[in-house]
Amino acid sequence: MTEELTVAVVGATGAVGRKMIETLEARRFPVKTLVPMASSRSAGKSVTFRGENVTVVEAQPEAFKGVDIALFSAGAKTSRALSPEAARRGAVVIDNSSAFRMDPEVPLVVPEVNGRAALGHHGIIANPNCSTIQMVVALKPIYDRFGIERIIVSTYQAVSGAGARAVEELMTLTRLQLSGEKRPAEILPVSSLPVHHSIAFNVLPQIDVFEDNGFTKEEMKMVNETRKILDDPEILVTPTCVRVPVVTGHSEAVYVETKEPFELEDVYGVLEHAPGVVVLDDPASQKYPMPADTEGRPEVFVGRIRKDLGHPRGLNLWVVSDNLLKGAAYNAVQIAELLVEQGGLR
Amino acid sequence: MTEELTVAVVGATGAVGRKMIETLEARRFPVKTLVPMASSRSAGKSVTFRGENVTVVEAQPEAFKGVDIALFSAGAKTSRALSPEAARRGAVVIDNSSAFRMDPEVPLVVPEVNGRAALGHHGIIANPNCSTIQMVVALKPIYDRFGIERIIVSTYQAVSGAGARAVEELMTLTRLQLSGEKRPAEILPVSSLPVHHSIAFNVLPQIDVFEDNGFTKEEMKMVNETRKILDDPEILVTPTCVRVPVVTGHSEAVYVETKEPFELEDVYGVLEHAPGVVVLDDPASQKYPMPADTEGRPEVFVGRIRKDLGHPRGLNLWVVSDNLLKGAAYNAVQIAELLVEQGGLR
Repeated sequence: MTEELTVAVVGATGAVGRKMIETLEARRFPVKTLVPMASSRSAGKSVTFRGENVTVVEAQPEAFKGVDIALFSAGAKTSRALSPEAARRGAVVIDNSSAFRMDPEVPLVVPEVNGRAALGHHGIIANPNCSTIQMVVALKPIYDRFGIERIIVSTYQAVSGAGARAVEELMTLTRLQLSGEKRPAEILPVSSLPVHHSIAFNVLPQIDVFEDNGFTKEEMKMVNETRKILDDPEILVTPTCVRVPVVTGHSEAVYVETKEPFELEDVYGVLEHAPGVVVLDDPASQKYPMPADTEGRPEVFVGRIRKDLGHPRGLNLWVVSDNLLKGAAYNAVQIAELLVEQGGLR
Repeated sequence: MTEELTVAVVGATGAVGRKMIETLEARRFPVKTLVPMASSRSAGKSVTFRGENVTVVEAQPEAFKGVDIALFSAGAKTSRALSPEAARRGAVVIDNSSAFRMDPEVPLVVPEVNGRAALGHHGIIANPNCSTIQMVVALKPIYDRFGIERIIVSTYQAVSGAGARAVEELMTLTRLQLSGEKRPAEILPVSSLPVHHSIAFNVLPQIDVFEDNGFTKEEMKMVNETRKILDDPEILVTPTCVRVPVVTGHSEAVYVETKEPFELEDVYGVLEHAPGVVVLDDPASQKYPMPADTEGRPEVFVGRIRKDLGHPRGLNLWVVSDNLLKGAAYNAVQIAELLVEQGGLR
C-alpha cells in the first residue's frame, strides 16, 4: 500500500458513513485526500478524520473528478443516480445499498468468502446486506468442507440497521415507557410505510417491505445474496427477519443441513481457522456471543455450535456481529484494501 | 360449574401466582374459599381476590386439608416436596413447575391439544413450559390435518418468564444504560449460576442451564414436552431459546415440515378454526403478532404464515402469546375448569 488515494465517502454524516471514515483511519488505509459527501442538506457540515475537520461537500457528479475509490452509503436512490457517474469519472464504487447487489454485472463481495470476485468489477462493487454478510462468513468454511444443502435462519436484528433516527426512536420510546408513558412510533419498522410499531420492550417481525410470497425484502436479500456470494443457485435459504430492541449487533440462530456428514470437532476445526471468525463457545462457563460484547469488533462471532438432535447432517450455530462494522463499513473498507493490494483500481 | 370449591394457589405472591388468582376471578371459577400459600417468608402478606384481602398462609402439608384444587407455581423444589402431600390429602394438583412434567404417571396437559389426558391423573397434572404451550397450540391443528415430521424453532422469550426479580433487573439496567451508566447483572440468564449477563439492549442465547448435548434445559423441554403432549415420540424438534429485552410475551419463529403436502389456504382454514388460536396475518396492512399487543390476552396469536421457498412441505409461522397467561396461569386454570366440567376431581 504505497500509492496514496483520494477516497470519497458518500453519506458521510450517516451512521454507516461515519463508521466508514473511522474504519479508514483505524485501518490506516492509504488516504491522501478524504472527500466526505452528503446531500445538499448536510453539505457544509464537517467530519473528523485523523484529528482534523473536513468539510462535507454536496454529492453530485462533478464532485467525483479525481476520486479513486468512492464508498457509498446513502441509500439505493442516491447510489442509482450517482454510482455510475462516479464510475464514469474513474472511481471504483463500493456501494453499501441494495441498488446493484443482484445486478449480474456487479460483484457482490465479502472478502473472506469471495474476495476474488471483486477484481472482475466494471466500476461498481456491491457490499451485501448486513444480515447476509455475517451469515456467509460463518458458513463459508462449513460450505467448503462439507457442502450446504439448506439454511434455516431466524434473525435478532439491531435497530441501528434502520438508521440513526430509528435508534433515537428506540431510546425515546424506551425512556418514556420506563416512566409509564407511551407515544406512537413514527419510524420503525419501515419509515416510508403508513403503519409504525414501537420497538420499546417489543420485537417486530418485519424488516423492510413485504413481497408477494409473504417474505420481506430483507428476508429475500438473505436468500438471493447468499446464493450469489456462494455462487450456488441451488442452496435453500429460509429466513425470518426480526427487529429486537438492541442498538448495535445482529444475532442469528442458524440451522444448516450439510451435504456430507460431519463430526462436530471438524466443524470447530474449520471455524477456528476461518478468516474473520471468532469461535466463542463454552457453555460450561456461559460463554457465547452476544450483541453487547461484539459492538466495535470487526469479526463474526460464532457459538452454541451443536449437532442437531434429529437430522444426522443438521448443525446449529449462533452468529453475532456488529452490523455497522462487518455488516457494512468494515466490509466495504476491506473490499477497498483488497483492490489496492491486488491491483483492482482503475 | 355448580359445586363451589376450595382452591389453593401455592406461590401466590409470585408473578405467575398472582396471574392465577386474577384468572380464577376473571373466569368466574367456582371458588368458595381461596387459600393463597407461599413460603414462610411471604406468609402473612395478603393478596386481593374479588375485592377482598386474603391472608397468605405458609405452604406446608397440613395446609392442604380440605383443598379441592391446588395450583402450584413456586418452583420445582417446592412442587416436589409438597405436591404429593397435597394429593395425599385429596387435592388435585395442577403444577406449573418442571418437577413432574416428564413423569409417565403425570399427564402433561394443554386443554386445546390433549385435554382428555388430564382425566387420567393420579392426583397431579403438569402444566407444560411456556414456550412449549404456545407452540403446540399453534401446531396441533396442522399436526391433525397434515402431520408433522419436524419443527425448527427459534424463540424470542420475555424476561417475566424468569420471574419478577429478572424484570426488575431489565428495568434497572435499561434505565441506567439510558443515562450512560452500567452495573453488573445479578440475575439473568440463570440466577443460580455464577456468570450473569445484562439483558439491557442485549439478547442472551441461554435460558436455563446447559445439558451435555449443547442444548439448554429450556430447549430440551421444548423437545421432550412437545413429544409427550402430541403423544408422538418420532417428531423432531430443533430449538434455539433466546431471552430478549421484552417484559411479557414470548415470540417464536417456527419452521414446520409436514408429512402430507398442504395448500396455504387450508393452513389458514385449520388455524382460523382452531381453539385458542387467533390468526393475525395481513402483511399489506402490516398486521402480525407482537408481544406488546398480546400482553393480557389469553390466546395464541399466529402470523407471517408462508410456504417455504425451497421445501415443498415446509411452512413458516410466527407465534406470539402472553407467557404468564396461556404460558402459565391461564393454562393451569383451563385445566382446573376441564376437571370441574368433566368430573375429574377426586
